[in-house]
Amino acid sequence: MSEGKPVIGILGGTGGLGTGLARRWLQAGYQVIIGTRDADKGLSAVADLQRVMAERGVGPVEVSALDYAGTASAADIVVLSVPFSHQADVLTSVREQLQGKVLVDTTVPLRPPKVSLVQLPESGSAGQIAQDLLGEGVHVVSAFQNVPAPRLKEDAPLECDVLVCGNNKDARAQVIRLVEAAGMRGLHAGQINNAAAVEALTSVLIFINRQFNSHAGIGITGLDA
Amino acid sequence: MSEGKPVIGILGGTGGLGTGLARRWLQAGYQVIIGTRDADKGLSAVADLQRVMAERGVGPVEVSALDYAGTASAADIVVLSVPFSHQADVLTSVREQLQGKVLVDTTVPLRPPKVSLVQLPESGSAGQIAQDLLGEGVHVVSAFQNVPAPRLKEDAPLECDVLVCGNNKDARAQVIRLVEAAGMRGLHAGQINNAAAVEALTSVLIFINRQFNSHAGIGITGLDA
Repeated sequence: MSEGKPVIGILGGTGGLGTGLARRWLQAGYQVIIGTRDADKGLSAVADLQRVMAERGVGPVEVSALDYAGTASAADIVVLSVPFSHQADVLTSVREQLQGKVLVDTTVPLRPPKVSLVQLPESGSAGQIAQDLLGEGVHVVSAFQNVPAPRLKEDAPLECDVLVCGNNKDARAQVIRLVEAAGMRGLHAGQINNAAAVEALTSVLIFINRQFNSHAGIGITGLDA
Repeated sequence: MSEGKPVIGILGGTGGLGTGLARRWLQAGYQVIIGTRDADKGLSAVADLQRVMAERGVGPVEVSALDYAGTASAADIVVLSVPFSHQADVLTSVREQLQGKVLVDTTVPLRPPKVSLVQLPESGSAGQIAQDLLGEGVHVVSAFQNVPAPRLKEDAPLECDVLVCGNNKDARAQVIRLVEAAGMRGLHAGQINNAAAVEALTSVLIFINRQFNSHAGIGITGLDA
């Protein structure tokens, strides 16, 4: 941990969402490990993150790249940011290293080519699949499915909320702190299978983005009333 | 039709959501028929709507009450606003009268007592159930599941968006006009089964309302960028 902050590992950290989250957390002073199967891509991602942080005038940042097992071992909180089709394989490969930790699942169960059509898995949600697969020794928390990755990469305020689902309240609270560090409001949104709502909403947002040529997100209204 | 506006029938029009929608539409100059199985309740609802409109300084309004079949026959657009447990029975009873019309399904498949837990039906969504049950002769459009009924009843602006799902684009557009007449922004949100996202979100909103003692809704952000 650096300054009491958890070390964050991002499995699939070279993708769009992973890159956006890494930028936000590095900028907020967190140590980030990019987890990737491709060592060259990992080095390149680290160099890119260092360059972008320097361009933004952010001081030296703690960022490195490791393979999936190394990332899951070294990090305090592990974020999964891979396509749904790889979710089960990747999680199975790091099941041991994740025991006792919080796993943040960002998976959206899209089924190409009809990605704007809600097609939830039989188990209900990708979040539930992750929890079932990892067992009770891992606190799975689902988040970030509705955040537009292109906006996340930018150095600008993000106008959207993040719905945070998981069976353990304290684990949800830890993830809400990471949401806030990334510049958004995080909200407790219920048990892990409530991720179904958030995952399904991503298809709706894709449908909306096609109409507006936008990078839409969601907000919860009426909380101040 | 009054002034080119469709006549709106609300099956289950004496409940919270039905009352809120009736108030908004009457205030916007639409003719509304309250559909109810209980004639006394229907008369009482009509009297209440007339009183509230008068209190708000709204001129004479066109509102009446009929049974379900009468409502479905007389209305141009029919809104279903009954508990999920009654959805299939009510729709089956008016299947003939609905042929050729738009049926707006507001049903949320909550399974008491765990209403803050997402528990979608096997068919995917209540919207899909309605479409399957009514057949292709009826354009089912799903909407209003995330609108807080208590806020809808008030004579004040509503800060929330309505996601509108359905297989027919023109039918969705007709419902979006009704959403706008009720003072909210309506958005095309995809095919009827995308209602799964919206219906599931209601459980998340219930979970959030319990924390904040709020009447939360949702908004789509990032459309202006």
